[in-house]
Amino acid sequence: MPSSPELNIALIGCGTVGGGVVRILQSSADLLAQRTGRTICLRRIVVRDVKKRRNLELGQIPVSDDIRTVIDDPEIHAAIHVVGGVNPARTDVTNLLQAGKDVITANKALLYAHGSELFALAHQLGRTICFEAAVAGGIPIISAVNTALTANRIVSIEAILNGTSNFILSRMLDRRQSYEDVLTEAQARGYAEADPAMDVDGTDAAQKLSILTQLAYGTTVPLRDIVRQGIQHIELLDLLVASELGYRVKLLATSRISKGRLELSVQPTLVRNDRPVALTSGADNIVSIEGDAVGLMRFSGAGAGQMPTASAVLADVIDYATGRAAITFQSLQRLQEREPIPLQPQDELSRRYYMRFTVADRPHVLADIADILGRNEISISSVRQDETADVDDESGVARLVIMTHRTTEGRLREADAAIAALSSLRGSRIRMPIAD
Amino acid sequence: MPSSPELNIALIGCGTVGGGVVRILQSSADLLAQRTGRTICLRRIVVRDVKKRRNLELGQIPVSDDIRTVIDDPEIHAAIHVVGGVNPARTDVTNLLQAGKDVITANKALLYAHGSELFALAHQLGRTICFEAAVAGGIPIISAVNTALTANRIVSIEAILNGTSNFILSRMLDRRQSYEDVLTEAQARGYAEADPAMDVDGTDAAQKLSILTQLAYGTTVPLRDIVRQGIQHIELLDLLVASELGYRVKLLATSRISKGRLELSVQPTLVRNDRPVALTSGADNIVSIEGDAVGLMRFSGAGAGQMPTASAVLADVIDYATGRAAITFQSLQRLQEREPIPLQPQDELSRRYYMRFTVADRPHVLADIADILGRNEISISSVRQDETADVDDESGVARLVIMTHRTTEGRLREADAAIAALSSLRGSRIRMPIAD
Repeated sequence: MPSSPELNIALIGCGTVGGGVVRILQSSADLLAQRTGRTICLRRIVVRDVKKRRNLELGQIPVSDDIRTVIDDPEIHAAIHVVGGVNPARTDVTNLLQAGKDVITANKALLYAHGSELFALAHQLGRTICFEAAVAGGIPIISAVNTALTANRIVSIEAILNGTSNFILSRMLDRRQSYEDVLTEAQARGYAEADPAMDVDGTDAAQKLSILTQLAYGTTVPLRDIVRQGIQHIELLDLLVASELGYRVKLLATSRISKGRLELSVQPTLVRNDRPVALTSGADNIVSIEGDAVGLMRFSGAGAGQMPTASAVLADVIDYATGRAAITFQSLQRLQEREPIPLQPQDELSRRYYMRFTVADRPHVLADIADILGRNEISISSVRQDETADVDDESGVARLVIMTHRTTEGRLREADAAIAALSSLRGSRIRMPIAD
Repeated sequence: MPSSPELNIALIGCGTVGGGVVRILQSSADLLAQRTGRTICLRRIVVRDVKKRRNLELGQIPVSDDIRTVIDDPEIHAAIHVVGGVNPARTDVTNLLQAGKDVITANKALLYAHGSELFALAHQLGRTICFEAAVAGGIPIISAVNTALTANRIVSIEAILNGTSNFILSRMLDRRQSYEDVLTEAQARGYAEADPAMDVDGTDAAQKLSILTQLAYGTTVPLRDIVRQGIQHIELLDLLVASELGYRVKLLATSRISKGRLELSVQPTLVRNDRPVALTSGADNIVSIEGDAVGLMRFSGAGAGQMPTASAVLADVIDYATGRAAITFQSLQRLQEREPIPLQPQDELSRRYYMRFTVADRPHVLADIADILGRNEISISSVRQDETADVDDESGVARLVIMTHRTTEGRLREADAAIAALSSLRGSRIRMPIAD
């Protein structure tokens, strides 16, 4: 971190978040100077398409489509990297670090895939990487794990980390709409990407959970070791039944230590409706984190969006400009030396479950399903097949909801496969864990 | 901040929080070393009564009742100050700073009363004061305001900052008990002090709010400029009526900018029961803070208690040991230069209100009260006087609940004084604002 009064930064990427960064740099220059005692100067901007119209007053700041203009400029101290995707981000950040630039990034996919490599390179070169904006947008969860909770051994993390899927689930229930209808509307309004796969299938949340897990427990967990399930097969009926039973369905990301093993999952989960996680609606995120000393702490707010994410980027810029970020990043290197915690095999995760089947409305269907559950040592806590509400318009098809007592993911998977093979099964089915 | 590998600290006060600090220092020495790259050594302990039995393994650490043993020891770098009250804390902290020791304190009353003076002294001497544990226990709200939200202009703070009163209000409603019964039980179990005045009359919350306001807005607000009201006059009936109307009653501390003026209040307040603030029960604290860029962020968790508060103290110790705390404290000095925001006169605060009167059950009482409200230009939104539930056992006395449309604190106060003089008034009455 240079100690001259002027801090020269470059902006790589000037889309939604980048535009927010420019706005705060311009509107809050006085605040940034007070906080840092320095003048933060935006010296260069790199974009993909220099001709694209941007609703920003960029004045004399050179805008280029070539990142070498930043890499080769010895005056630039640090780059704000707000471009998504793994490539060319990986090469760009590598080159920036090697050119002696510190990096402030909001790119969670990059950190998930190549964080260890980039952090090691930065440590080796004496550079700093800041990444508060990469997880949960404006919520200062990286800062909480890296500074406020440092005297704690983290016991568990339970979070809503994907705003798009939370928006869809909230809206389905509020408006009594189908998954498809809400998704179409969210795309039309720009709340969901044209290709929302990473948001709705749990990939985005799992990448963020993996980053938090690395920071909190010092253990690297690849996506394949996280029980992961998306929200695509949830029907409005599931949300309504859960609601009647006193639950909300949330795409819950959890990472907890249980009997010395680390359990990770990202799954639509039934959460009791008076819990703060259940009440986190719309595009908001929440992170509940339990430390051995501090107990349960909760952080919630906007998990994405232009200004909240830009706010997190600027918090990093201020932390960097004052020198705090370099210190924090150094301590992350020491934390690499922690002994990794062994992972719980996915099949061993033990929870209660909600299962919903679409079945032919004929004799012995329930008996068949109950038999399969019984043979897999899964005991049923409640069954529900209403005569009216759950019957489809097309006659002869009914929806059956079963709540189980505590069992394992492995047993559930076995039973589910056997049930799927029943000739009486129709259309979609779903199983979701219940958070205790 | 000394950069030698060993950091020598002294502990001033070894009561509940001090004991927690000793426990974490002992049980998490490895964690602290990883986080800081240094060895944190507890070298001295100062207590009021050296003979008192403590359930701690203090080994060879010298325990004294004389703080001069710390002040005069050139080997000590910093003191953890976990003693309550303003005196002798003020003198002790002054002497510690002047002897070249940095100070980590959890003493909110001291910071409220003499924070500016002590901070100025520390800045002048090149020393650092850390105080995360002084407000909201384990919740890292000082860190959030001083680092994570630094790129924001704070718009409002809305918080539950006193665990004891929140515990009492939650328990009254849950168990259908009176204020007096819950308080007696809380005292017996050690949840409430023998003298709970500062907790239940809003002083504790107002001091914390004043500290947060100073950090967030750079404006010093003494207690006399905060609309302040305690929970002592709340009856179970008020909580039940509020609940039926869809509200919870919380001792809400708010500090917000409205039309360029700063409004501060600590009052029992009706909060819609689906809001996170309303759902914060037991001794938990919550802080909702709105920034112009980040939007609304919420932080909640244990606001007091041995280990949560000790966790915050140790987070400060780690921040201090790494050198981050000194940087943060320097930037606080620059923030002193901010222009103070003018205060809204107390009488101008504008809200809707809940009013409950105990009245003689005889003709014209409602007309008298309605007349007084009308003359003060307060319009009534709803009135409630149930025939059965609200009538006291002693016949002839009824409870009347009036909800008003938006009006000012000043008008309410005038009207309340006039109503109090009515001959039909019996026993207690209360008025509480309604949070929108």
